Amino acid sequence: MIVLILMRFAINRFVKLCVRSSIMPEVRIEEVSRFMRECFQATGVSENDAREHTALLLQADFTGHYSHGLNRVGSTHFGMAGYWAQRAEKQGLIGMAFTNSSPLLVPTRAKEGTLGTNPIAMAAPASGGDSILVDMSTTAVAMGKVEMKIHEGKPLPDGWAMDQNGKMTHDPNVGFKSGRLYPLGGLEETSGYKGYCLSAMNEVFCSTLSGAKASHQRPWGATDPEDPPNLGQMFVAIDPGCFAPGFGDRLADCLSHWRNLPPVDPSLPVLAPGDKERSHFEQTNKRGTIVYEAKQIESCASLAKQLGVKPILTL
Amino acid sequence: MIVLILMRFAINRFVKLCVRSSIMPEVRIEEVSRFMRECFQATGVSENDAREHTALLLQADFTGHYSHGLNRVGSTHFGMAGYWAQRAEKQGLIGMAFTNSSPLLVPTRAKEGTLGTNPIAMAAPASGGDSILVDMSTTAVAMGKVEMKIHEGKPLPDGWAMDQNGKMTHDPNVGFKSGRLYPLGGLEETSGYKGYCLSAMNEVFCSTLSGAKASHQRPWGATDPEDPPNLGQMFVAIDPGCFAPGFGDRLADCLSHWRNLPPVDPSLPVLAPGDKERSHFEQTNKRGTIVYEAKQIESCASLAKQLGVKPILTL
Repeated sequence: MIVLILMRFAINRFVKLCVRSSIMPEVRIEEVSRFMRECFQATGVSENDAREHTALLLQADFTGHYSHGLNRVGSTHFGMAGYWAQRAEKQGLIGMAFTNSSPLLVPTRAKEGTLGTNPIAMAAPASGGDSILVDMSTTAVAMGKVEMKIHEGKPLPDGWAMDQNGKMTHDPNVGFKSGRLYPLGGLEETSGYKGYCLSAMNEVFCSTLSGAKASHQRPWGATDPEDPPNLGQMFVAIDPGCFAPGFGDRLADCLSHWRNLPPVDPSLPVLAPGDKERSHFEQTNKRGTIVYEAKQIESCASLAKQLGVKPILTL
Repeated sequence: MIVLILMRFAINRFVKLCVRSSIMPEVRIEEVSRFMRECFQATGVSENDAREHTALLLQADFTGHYSHGLNRVGSTHFGMAGYWAQRAEKQGLIGMAFTNSSPLLVPTRAKEGTLGTNPIAMAAPASGGDSILVDMSTTAVAMGKVEMKIHEGKPLPDGWAMDQNGKMTHDPNVGFKSGRLYPLGGLEETSGYKGYCLSAMNEVFCSTLSGAKASHQRPWGATDPEDPPNLGQMFVAIDPGCFAPGFGDRLADCLSHWRNLPPVDPSLPVLAPGDKERSHFEQTNKRGTIVYEAKQIESCASLAKQLGVKPILTL
């Protein structure tokens, strides 16, 4: 009996592994880049702009933020906010980037979304080639994480998402369907109003200053060409050379101090902001390929047909 | 039997009310101001600086942030970050203020504090005399809120504080004694690393740029006159007149849109960032007095004796 159960377990596991590997196609970096560029050019984007936009989306897949990479080809998406901050950082500057977006964040006490995931990004260079990268939405989590819980068949933690009536839900399907996310901090008793405040601050920077649409004026997924998204962004670059000398050394000291703090669990060392992205970037670079969900590649195949572009080639 | 229990309940309640009213002394605003000013001058602070610092601390008590008001007289405290942002806002500018502080915030996965509560403040003027105010620490809560749970005899919610080993605690005494706060967002699964990132960003602005001490170099409560705190601050003022016309109207529209969102509980309307502080300010102004904890007034009495200043007069 036990042997039978074990065998069934082993077979299930084998099947799952096969399914898993069959659903995770791998693509060479140059091939992803070629596909993105050709898609943009097929819709009339200039060669230069196509190259620039490809670099933006590719950076997200490189660093493990797949929700902002290949799956955003041809869309109206801003991409990964940190990319813009890092462009300034590569020039020796402190870079910052902000954008408003579509109404997914529900302010504390409200029952419907009105602010965007309105991300905040900051990057700065440290001595010895080190750097800091902050790149975060002002919601508790991105909608993509709710979607992942659906795939995993797991309940949502407290303070991630709400149902249609603004009540907290642990059911990822309910949270995904309602499109209502808690601000960073979650419920009011765990200071969710701070995430709401950050998102509102971002709104002031991105739409109030620039005259672009506010997040609540741009429903998610709206694609009417007569009514462009018209969202707003703010970019900041600060030259640390204008302030006290020794910026790079002091930042390197802080980064190293944080990384060397004693961890609660020795198998999970403390990271400095941006370490996760850097490590993912280095792994991708070394491997020379990016691994995608099968669905992603299927959707690219249909896009290729639509645009008359050579389909993406998986390994 | 039931009557007896009810009577005992009523007596207990009556006693509690008496104790409560007896422990909450009220002081006229001008008297608080006089006391603060005289204390500063008694320690050699110039008349002008004493007036400026009194205005800073008084604003905190006015808006209900008692942890940053009268109880900070003579200390090395920065005060309420929002005060500085509001000074720019009163001039028609977007104001921002940041400071680093002492190591109370425990980075995600670490077991000891290394960053400060490192607050972020932003204020901006809207049409019709309206305004936005964001003023928040980057920890889940301030230590004062943990202290309040001790007084109330209530457990801490998830993701507020840790014990000595970096494990989450619900016991407010343990959390207060350990001095270890979660970053905004709480645990890793609820995105506590975002609060950690915000605090780190603040550190870059305040100590890395300026050459001041980093938060981890300045233990809480250190008062050695040979070793001054030497923390850093960053102040920003942006003239919205340099950007698209109509800033004030657009901000007023956003504030009104947020306030008019349907609330989950009709008795708890949705607030715009800064509404709570404004309402507290208006109530204090109307009443002409500030209500303090008895302990606060006792501590002022002993300070008055120490400095040779006329004690604070309660009503």
